Amino acid sequence: MAGSAPVSPLAPTHFPELPEIDGVELASIEAGIKYRGRPDVLLCVMVPGTQAAGVFTRSLTASAPVELCRANLSGGSARALIVNAGNANAFTGKAGLTSVKQTVAGVAKAVGCDRKEVFIASTGVIGEPLEAGKITDALERLCGDLKADSWQDAAGAIMTTDTFAKAATATARLDGKTVTINGIAKGSGMIAPDMATMLSFVFTDADLPAPVLQTLLETATKNSFNNITVDSDTSTSDTLMLFATGASGAGSGISEASDPRLKAFAKALNSLIMDLAHLVVRDGEGAEKFITLDVQGAENDAAARRIGLAIANSPLVKTAIAGEDANWGRIVMAVGKAGERADRDKMKIWIGGVRVAIRGQRDPAYREEMVTGHMASRDIALKVDVGIGKGKATVWTCDLTHRYIDINADYRS
Amino acid sequence: MAGSAPVSPLAPTHFPELPEIDGVELASIEAGIKYRGRPDVLLCVMVPGTQAAGVFTRSLTASAPVELCRANLSGGSARALIVNAGNANAFTGKAGLTSVKQTVAGVAKAVGCDRKEVFIASTGVIGEPLEAGKITDALERLCGDLKADSWQDAAGAIMTTDTFAKAATATARLDGKTVTINGIAKGSGMIAPDMATMLSFVFTDADLPAPVLQTLLETATKNSFNNITVDSDTSTSDTLMLFATGASGAGSGISEASDPRLKAFAKALNSLIMDLAHLVVRDGEGAEKFITLDVQGAENDAAARRIGLAIANSPLVKTAIAGEDANWGRIVMAVGKAGERADRDKMKIWIGGVRVAIRGQRDPAYREEMVTGHMASRDIALKVDVGIGKGKATVWTCDLTHRYIDINADYRS
Repeated sequence: MAGSAPVSPLAPTHFPELPEIDGVELASIEAGIKYRGRPDVLLCVMVPGTQAAGVFTRSLTASAPVELCRANLSGGSARALIVNAGNANAFTGKAGLTSVKQTVAGVAKAVGCDRKEVFIASTGVIGEPLEAGKITDALERLCGDLKADSWQDAAGAIMTTDTFAKAATATARLDGKTVTINGIAKGSGMIAPDMATMLSFVFTDADLPAPVLQTLLETATKNSFNNITVDSDTSTSDTLMLFATGASGAGSGISEASDPRLKAFAKALNSLIMDLAHLVVRDGEGAEKFITLDVQGAENDAAARRIGLAIANSPLVKTAIAGEDANWGRIVMAVGKAGERADRDKMKIWIGGVRVAIRGQRDPAYREEMVTGHMASRDIALKVDVGIGKGKATVWTCDLTHRYIDINADYRS
Repeated sequence: MAGSAPVSPLAPTHFPELPEIDGVELASIEAGIKYRGRPDVLLCVMVPGTQAAGVFTRSLTASAPVELCRANLSGGSARALIVNAGNANAFTGKAGLTSVKQTVAGVAKAVGCDRKEVFIASTGVIGEPLEAGKITDALERLCGDLKADSWQDAAGAIMTTDTFAKAATATARLDGKTVTINGIAKGSGMIAPDMATMLSFVFTDADLPAPVLQTLLETATKNSFNNITVDSDTSTSDTLMLFATGASGAGSGISEASDPRLKAFAKALNSLIMDLAHLVVRDGEGAEKFITLDVQGAENDAAARRIGLAIANSPLVKTAIAGEDANWGRIVMAVGKAGERADRDKMKIWIGGVRVAIRGQRDPAYREEMVTGHMASRDIALKVDVGIGKGKATVWTCDLTHRYIDINADYRS
């Protein structure tokens, strides 16, 4: 469980220094949802006028909090975000919906905003009722403790099986001013987002309207959170939200995501969201290797992505990498099962930059010792050319180790 | 590796007694393909007039042996089957095709038949060249050792990571006579057949033409081998063949699989193929639990199967079962990611016959101790009603344990 598990060997050396974001305050608290001795509820309060965007799980069994966020996003404005760890409030029926409504009502009252401006996310065990009282009883203390610099505590409060708190920060020039973007995220199992990781929240002081934020967020997600996988399992609670307080005034008047003035901001946002997605993979349950997989030569980019995910989700590929075994035959197998066009006799495979297969067979120049050092390293680079067209994609994943089983065979106890 | 690994706790207590099949002789030998101290090549010789049917992997990177079998099946007749374990001869380019041709030519000469009547299957490591000489050099000894009662040796010779030899037998009344059906199979990883397990061969003395056999085999496969999964990985070499020697004379003149005279035979064949499919799951790499999963209430049967496979392939479901944890929330998650219609608020879930969830939440009458005994047993029964329609399917799988990783992180060494 969080706290007792060793920190992922793929973790960054330290938590980044996140600057304050004008218009955002945070507080976290130990509310006793499930964990003991650590904060498990996060409250973010944003200034009036804050605009919001979000992408959510495509699971057909989405949680009650996800449904609430989807509904409230239609308003476009946000004043508060409440997050708990330890209980996903998913598959909890009417009780789950009631719990969400009670929590949102409590937050709206405590913050002094409309219920439509409150967003909620829950992560943890599925199917257990979540008592709203545990959260609402903590609201007074949370509101009294709001600070602009509590990013590390915030990132820690939303963790479940994560072994380190995840955050990233970036700045960009917009309208001649410097705007800041901060993001936090949590993993670390049930990660095959069909839009996002389990939970990630990004904040900026840029002054941009909700529809622009929505387009920017969807674009940023496409090649980042949607191209990572830990275990092929898609959460019922995946939530990625972007909040813009507008406090910097920069961006005012922009009404289209395609506005050229947004170029630097979009680039910074894409980069920050990619960083967060990679951090989630680096804390994949039991992960000991961070795997970057480039697929090229596919019929189109979507086909390349599907081939990439078939490889990245293959238990046989993932266990081979855990064993530092350059078993490229399993990559061939995974390409074959992806269901996308591939020319077996034109396929090429590289491991750590070394071409190991060409024209449907082992490269004559390849000897296994050429990649032994690479396979023993933390960062594994695989490349596959399936020999059909020009489609390409990059997918990130981790290896499958004994610790994944340790963690998940005993998650609830 | 085979031989050194402990036998699966889900294995039958003994190898079944297989009667002789009139018109089939078998021999196996240690040819030094990869293993030491065990046979690794199997030769089956069948009487002239033997008819053949087959279903093969749908992998787009199918092996050279699979391609040969597909081509030769058009002839409909078979005289010999040659199988090796230890090397899949897959992704071996032109050398792989040459190796297949040399082997087939050698077998045709040794047996005295047409090359079109020889079938071949290889299982083991992908991407390593396979020297045909290792097999053809052994043909003289194999031909000298052909016997009608060598079924257990035959089943043993085709094993790779299997921990026990797999076979089943059945009889059926046909045309007033009793016909016999024997089958052997091997697993035990890379099992998510999109038609079959890696390798399985079924023999009968019934007198039926190839097109009838083909239809019967496809029907038998549909709900058996196509509904099992160990690790979601589809082999490049999946091969399931059915050979009918005709030696009993029973069935002569039947030209349609729908002929009512075939009812008992088809039933026996279906049952035998289901037995073989279950044996493959019972020897799934690292398996400690045999899981039967019934899905009902889906939009149609195909949707039910896809939902079933999504659950059966979920690492989080499989590790929870390994941990004897009745974590039904993960079943909800897996239903949600299957991409098929499901009504979260009408969903019901049973574990070992105990209803644990109803109307989108935990069953009020359910307490975890009601299923503790069941979760601790070897055979786990799960049932899910997704609340949409009348589609149903049954899928079989095993749990995901540390041994799966032990086996696969170090398969080639």
